[in-house]
Amino acid sequence: MTGFSDLGYARVDTDRESRQGLPEVVYGPGKLPEEITGIVTELLARSTGPVLVTRVEPEVAAAVRVPGGDYDETARLLVWRPAEQRDFRLCVATAGTSDWPVAAEADAVASAIGLRTHVVRDVGVAGIHRLLAASEDLEQADAVVVVAGMEGALASAVGGLVSCPVIAVPTSTGYGASLDGVTALLAMLTSCAAGLTVVNIDSGFSAAMAAHRLAVVARR
Amino acid sequence: MTGFSDLGYARVDTDRESRQGLPEVVYGPGKLPEEITGIVTELLARSTGPVLVTRVEPEVAAAVRVPGGDYDETARLLVWRPAEQRDFRLCVATAGTSDWPVAAEADAVASAIGLRTHVVRDVGVAGIHRLLAASEDLEQADAVVVVAGMEGALASAVGGLVSCPVIAVPTSTGYGASLDGVTALLAMLTSCAAGLTVVNIDSGFSAAMAAHRLAVVARR
Amino acid sequence: MTGFSDLGYARVDTDRESRQGLPEVVYGPGKLPEEITGIVTELLARSTGPVLVTRVEPEVAAAVRVPGGDYDETARLLVWRPAEQRDFRLCVATAGTSDWPVAAEADAVASAIGLRTHVVRDVGVAGIHRLLAASEDLEQADAVVVVAGMEGALASAVGGLVSCPVIAVPTSTGYGASLDGVTALLAMLTSCAAGLTVVNIDSGFSAAMAAHRLAVVARR
Amino acid sequence: MTGFSDLGYARVDTDRESRQGLPEVVYGPGKLPEEITGIVTELLARSTGPVLVTRVEPEVAAAVRVPGGDYDETARLLVWRPAEQRDFRLCVATAGTSDWPVAAEADAVASAIGLRTHVVRDVGVAGIHRLLAASEDLEQADAVVVVAGMEGALASAVGGLVSCPVIAVPTSTGYGASLDGVTALLAMLTSCAAGLTVVNIDSGFSAAMAAHRLAVVARR
Amino acid sequence: MTGFSDLGYARVDTDRESRQGLPEVVYGPGKLPEEITGIVTELLARSTGPVLVTRVEPEVAAAVRVPGGDYDETARLLVWRPAEQRDFRLCVATAGTSDWPVAAEADAVASAIGLRTHVVRDVGVAGIHRLLAASEDLEQADAVVVVAGMEGALASAVGGLVSCPVIAVPTSTGYGASLDGVTALLAMLTSCAAGLTVVNIDSGFSAAMAAHRLAVVARR
Amino acid sequence: MTGFSDLGYARVDTDRESRQGLPEVVYGPGKLPEEITGIVTELLARSTGPVLVTRVEPEVAAAVRVPGGDYDETARLLVWRPAEQRDFRLCVATAGTSDWPVAAEADAVASAIGLRTHVVRDVGVAGIHRLLAASEDLEQADAVVVVAGMEGALASAVGGLVSCPVIAVPTSTGYGASLDGVTALLAMLTSCAAGLTVVNIDSGFSAAMAAHRLAVVARR
Amino acid sequence: MTGFSDLGYARVDTDRESRQGLPEVVYGPGKLPEEITGIVTELLARSTGPVLVTRVEPEVAAAVRVPGGDYDETARLLVWRPAEQRDFRLCVATAGTSDWPVAAEADAVASAIGLRTHVVRDVGVAGIHRLLAASEDLEQADAVVVVAGMEGALASAVGGLVSCPVIAVPTSTGYGASLDGVTALLAMLTSCAAGLTVVNIDSGFSAAMAAHRLAVVARR
Amino acid sequence: MTGFSDLGYARVDTDRESRQGLPEVVYGPGKLPEEITGIVTELLARSTGPVLVTRVEPEVAAAVRVPGGDYDETARLLVWRPAEQRDFRLCVATAGTSDWPVAAEADAVASAIGLRTHVVRDVGVAGIHRLLAASEDLEQADAVVVVAGMEGALASAVGGLVSCPVIAVPTSTGYGASLDGVTALLAMLTSCAAGLTVVNIDSGFSAAMAAHRLAVVARR
Repeated sequence: MTGFSDLGYARVDTDRESRQGLPEVVYGPGKLPEEITGIVTELLARSTGPVLVTRVEPEVAAAVRVPGGDYDETARLLVWRPAEQRDFRLCVATAGTSDWPVAAEADAVASAIGLRTHVVRDVGVAGIHRLLAASEDLEQADAVVVVAGMEGALASAVGGLVSCPVIAVPTSTGYGASLDGVTALLAMLTSCAAGLTVVNIDSGFSAAMAAHRLAVVARR
Repeated sequence: MTGFSDLGYARVDTDRESRQGLPEVVYGPGKLPEEITGIVTELLARSTGPVLVTRVEPEVAAAVRVPGGDYDETARLLVWRPAEQRDFRLCVATAGTSDWPVAAEADAVASAIGLRTHVVRDVGVAGIHRLLAASEDLEQADAVVVVAGMEGALASAVGGLVSCPVIAVPTSTGYGASLDGVTALLAMLTSCAAGLTVVNIDSGFSAAMAAHRLAVVARR
Repeated sequence: MTGFSDLGYARVDTDRESRQGLPEVVYGPGKLPEEITGIVTELLARSTGPVLVTRVEPEVAAAVRVPGGDYDETARLLVWRPAEQRDFRLCVATAGTSDWPVAAEADAVASAIGLRTHVVRDVGVAGIHRLLAASEDLEQADAVVVVAGMEGALASAVGGLVSCPVIAVPTSTGYGASLDGVTALLAMLTSCAAGLTVVNIDSGFSAAMAAHRLAVVARR
Repeated sequence: MTGFSDLGYARVDTDRESRQGLPEVVYGPGKLPEEITGIVTELLARSTGPVLVTRVEPEVAAAVRVPGGDYDETARLLVWRPAEQRDFRLCVATAGTSDWPVAAEADAVASAIGLRTHVVRDVGVAGIHRLLAASEDLEQADAVVVVAGMEGALASAVGGLVSCPVIAVPTSTGYGASLDGVTALLAMLTSCAAGLTVVNIDSGFSAAMAAHRLAVVARR
Repeated sequence: MTGFSDLGYARVDTDRESRQGLPEVVYGPGKLPEEITGIVTELLARSTGPVLVTRVEPEVAAAVRVPGGDYDETARLLVWRPAEQRDFRLCVATAGTSDWPVAAEADAVASAIGLRTHVVRDVGVAGIHRLLAASEDLEQADAVVVVAGMEGALASAVGGLVSCPVIAVPTSTGYGASLDGVTALLAMLTSCAAGLTVVNIDSGFSAAMAAHRLAVVARR
Repeated sequence: MTGFSDLGYARVDTDRESRQGLPEVVYGPGKLPEEITGIVTELLARSTGPVLVTRVEPEVAAAVRVPGGDYDETARLLVWRPAEQRDFRLCVATAGTSDWPVAAEADAVASAIGLRTHVVRDVGVAGIHRLLAASEDLEQADAVVVVAGMEGALASAVGGLVSCPVIAVPTSTGYGASLDGVTALLAMLTSCAAGLTVVNIDSGFSAAMAAHRLAVVARR
Repeated sequence: MTGFSDLGYARVDTDRESRQGLPEVVYGPGKLPEEITGIVTELLARSTGPVLVTRVEPEVAAAVRVPGGDYDETARLLVWRPAEQRDFRLCVATAGTSDWPVAAEADAVASAIGLRTHVVRDVGVAGIHRLLAASEDLEQADAVVVVAGMEGALASAVGGLVSCPVIAVPTSTGYGASLDGVTALLAMLTSCAAGLTVVNIDSGFSAAMAAHRLAVVARR
Repeated sequence: MTGFSDLGYARVDTDRESRQGLPEVVYGPGKLPEEITGIVTELLARSTGPVLVTRVEPEVAAAVRVPGGDYDETARLLVWRPAEQRDFRLCVATAGTSDWPVAAEADAVASAIGLRTHVVRDVGVAGIHRLLAASEDLEQADAVVVVAGMEGALASAVGGLVSCPVIAVPTSTGYGASLDGVTALLAMLTSCAAGLTVVNIDSGFSAAMAAHRLAVVARR
């Protein structure tokens, strides 16, 4: 029992589920449809939980030949055997319309791995009344994922409103001094609201997985 | 009821505790001992939970005149009315000896706000057997704070071992290409282990507060 | 009539006042007390309005020998012949206590050149109710200078509340990912609130001078 | 009365006009023509002033189906219900021909929201006589927007000539060490001319909106 | 005897082999097929060892007209007269599937210049058991090339397991904070494992050449 | 047998020698003399080879109480039980006088761990005849450590002269655009000479340890 | 006599030749063929010397309708009325084949404005004998333009060989740590050879114009 | 005849004068007074021209024991055997008073090596009339060294006024976005004035040496 399968083009980690209780997730970019097909088939055979492939373009998704999968085009996500919904409420809040694709990935991954998600859109701090109007939604959440680009100020504002964990996702939205998301990343890391945590730029996936880790503890 | 007190040199947010359930924490740098004295006195009068002042140098700590406080010199932390310990186990792991002051801040702040902490020292990945020897400690934790400088690889290794939340704290340990902690920060953000979250460089405080938010949810 | 005086160690621009209607301001760092004395004496003789020296440390200020000057230690500002107050209300808002020295410079320079200033302290977005409580102060201003470090989110929040000009001043407050004010600078430049403008890091002086230019137009 | 409309794909802030007196502006990139159509229709119904969509490519503009709009291809701007011209003179000065598209956006947005604009082209400091020849135009302005890439020196030169507000817009013109506009941005922020303010790289829109805020005060 | 040939479009260094004992390698990008043809023909005539062209796209490779060459599409490498295999075992280890193209270049170049290579795939530290399972392979090597992107932690883990030289190759795999390989580069340079060395981002070629230099000494 | 000793303030890796054949080295900064004393005493008791402490300031070195140690002030190195010299010739070449402290560390560490070192000083490429005059020294080496700051061009020149391994150490020598050694680091990584490898800025220690790994293989 | 012509789409500086003795040069990017046609026609009518347009792609060059022009495709340069050759010898040296397009621009611009050019190719420092073989060419020059990418070490080596002015042009050749030419730029600025000067990345044009300024003085 | 002397602590290049016609210059930082004494003594014995030591602090200068030297405290320069003045006029222009120390180094080095210097102070572009008043001085120069910090716009303005060589020296004057001189450096490299060249930040020395190279050619 090595704990992995060697497919030639990839060595698949087949017991992450049993070892860590984490879902099996494949990073799509750079993999051919037939490679994805092979890896997913292997994972479905060797584990029992959900299997996901992230950042898959539509034409690649169409060429992956494994029955039972669902494709979400906005989230660019392929899912097999989505988990049953458990009682953990995740609120995904976005600052502006351009942040939606990243939020969609967070939303779709979180749903696929069994979290109960709720989306609150377009509550950027330049119109603070929109955020305040959503405060009930935020307060009922077990965790909030804040998705924002440009100056990323929404993370600080949400961090000041709720007491639950806040996971900030900077996005590469914007131009010039937004530096492809680096500005939002740095701003979120230096937020004046205490106890925020941050994941990589545009990584809705990381935020969802971080929420999964929270749900693991909340269940205990 | 404005929710804050104006002391002239500072406008103190006095209902964060009731509003958010978060402890009252004052950022020490740039404040005179008499200002800290005034703010702490106000917070103690207006709230009922722990009051903390972070990043306080010994000579400043000695000049703060508020009875009942404790000073931790390694963590540079002043604490009044520490919270009662609740049932949330936080493991604080460090990569090397130089990371200790930051880990000490995480440890001291977390203890002061009621988390049960356990420290695992010097388990950097260059001697991976040290980390594996600590795996039981890690697995029993409700959350792990990983404190590491230089290349910050410990966060990835821990992230691959446990299923609970992992909060990575990059430190400014090292020289040259470590760029005062920026390298560790970037490395932790791009970890190959899924679902890690990251806080600001050297911010043991932020990690402890993020753990507090976790504990809030775990209690629900 | 050359429009400048050559003092050997400096060539003083003596008709900026008549040419541009701007006050005469000397940048202090790197100048000896006797040089400052010489330049100020020359400017007082050649012009009729206020004369300022910025970023002057207390021991230098004490050694400058020109009668009639006032020194503000927090703002590190020397002033001769302050202008009469005109009817332009400038609100200076700060995010946190650590931003005060920069705000003090903006406040002191603006006062010295004739603007009517009003300070609103410690209204960072992590406690948004503090900002909302100050909204009347903000709305009555002809312009708002927002002084904030770390993630600088206050600028966006203020920009979304008022319709008058907002001049954002990033400060070098903070550590780690705040990158000595660069993060706040970038965040303010990419604010989601429309029509904010930004000046250099820690430059309370620039903000006050920008406000002076506004007052010139408002008077017309 | 929530102050916003939820269109499913966007939550539209519908009372910015009444709340702030600012025009309604939609950021075009990443939005489908049908989404722009929906948002603009909603804004036209809920407000009475101008409605703008920025950074719209020609093929998108052609597919937006809302009567009464005008499209400016150089400025990439869609406008409905342009404001009546008020008595505020905005001079838009460019350093070189390559800066024109950004200046065109500043010019078009400012006109659409009611400012009286005047363009002065190609007055870069390498041929300082061209700038001096335009000094009368500059002096008659209530505010000057300086659009310049590469080293952005025009902002300093203009700042030394006029007493009114100067809003500097760095452009991404140039190559190599111009770093996509970052060099011009940094140079403008550190200008030796006092009281300049700066907006994001290539953001003619921000400059126009900043001018609008000036005009609000000038009217008072 | 000048030691080089002037082909008009290139001055070919024709005695590197005799001078340094290093193989003749041509950097492909920016050269036309006919130029590559000319240079390779010259090198084959003037030297006796292997001749390589790196980073050659398939369509260029197809248009190079020199008999006896082999093209490896994954490695983008053209080889003439590969060296005889000598007794130096080079292990090429990759962190993830996306690192394969760079590892393939290291592998192919090393083979072409006479090293005995062995590839160990997908042993990233997030599943540390995969790496430990490969420790025998690693221990038998005379040198290890570690190819990893994102946070590059594999280099540190390998560096802690083996006593032979470790050459780390950062890859541009990943997005956001991976900064096109700069994060992995910095992380490898600051590794907590002693005595690692690092080459340029994505340069499988440099790693193979560095291994060649090792083999030269090992033979002595 | 855990393979490490827990001293309270440090968990000492005590079987690196047996596990990896690498010498025991302690990183000095941030450790108190009594901590160094404890760690060194433990390492001397648990292993049989050399024990080193790097980057130790003179006053700290003087306070370390372990018999038998030698202190090299230029290299800031403490050594106990230096290894017997083996037959591996390491040439340490410097570009300029300011690079000497870093070269001294490489030299002293390499000597302490058993390599035969030879120093070639001040052979920067601006006086290329000096380098050519040293070519015999270079050619007889089994490996060359090149220590250079500013533009680091010496690494490329040496790399073009010898066929053995070249380990480049960038130094923080210089000012302005040398960016504390980052320029030399980047320049060495992009050297036009094939097969160079690079270690962290100012890390003479890393270069010596990399040479040790070479010597391990050369002995086989 | 204003000294410029207003063509609507451009304000042409028409007396630079008489004012400064510099040739008239138009920056091509972003200009339509008809705009280039108009500007060149105006310049030819208003001045008597050479007229150049830089960075012109072939399809644009083909569409410019002004008789008497020559197009150099490698240099991407359009020239009318090239200057008579004067007695100033400019040597253009390149490190590698990939640097040729930039060197070609320097060569073509310098020739067009009357300098006598001589090209020395592929003399990178990794094969220092190639550079030494060219030393006679270098010594006879009145100035040397060094064109090099990656680590740019050729500039230092040339600077150490000749006493005449050396103008270094970094190129964006290379990948990874070459950072699009920034590494070569920084390396050249920090050269250990005294008195080198540097121009913008990839700017063969700037180097030629700097040489023109030298020739102006040499003629005096 | 090796062309250098080995002093143990330094290998002195003793025939740079004869080889290149360049003066002998020693970089002071990091050298002990006795080392400077030794090197200077050697150079005076082995050459016939001027000998300089740069960046020498007063207390070091006082401890250097070589007769006949002169120390300039502002320029931090030690000089022996200054060259006879030749007919080459170098104008050193500064933007502001804070740039003076760097300009003083350029001035003192240039004088010591035989150039005829003339200083024009405080002609920053914010008061363009000061620069225009100095245009005669500028026009009579054979070369102009422009010393400026912050946004460095003076280089562009001077470049547009004169036809002779312009050597731009960025200074680390300023704060915040001036990034210790990097902003001025980048701005000068991207100047809209054609044919400027740039040297390292704060390097008045480099500018003087570049001027020396010009003078070599001008004499021919």
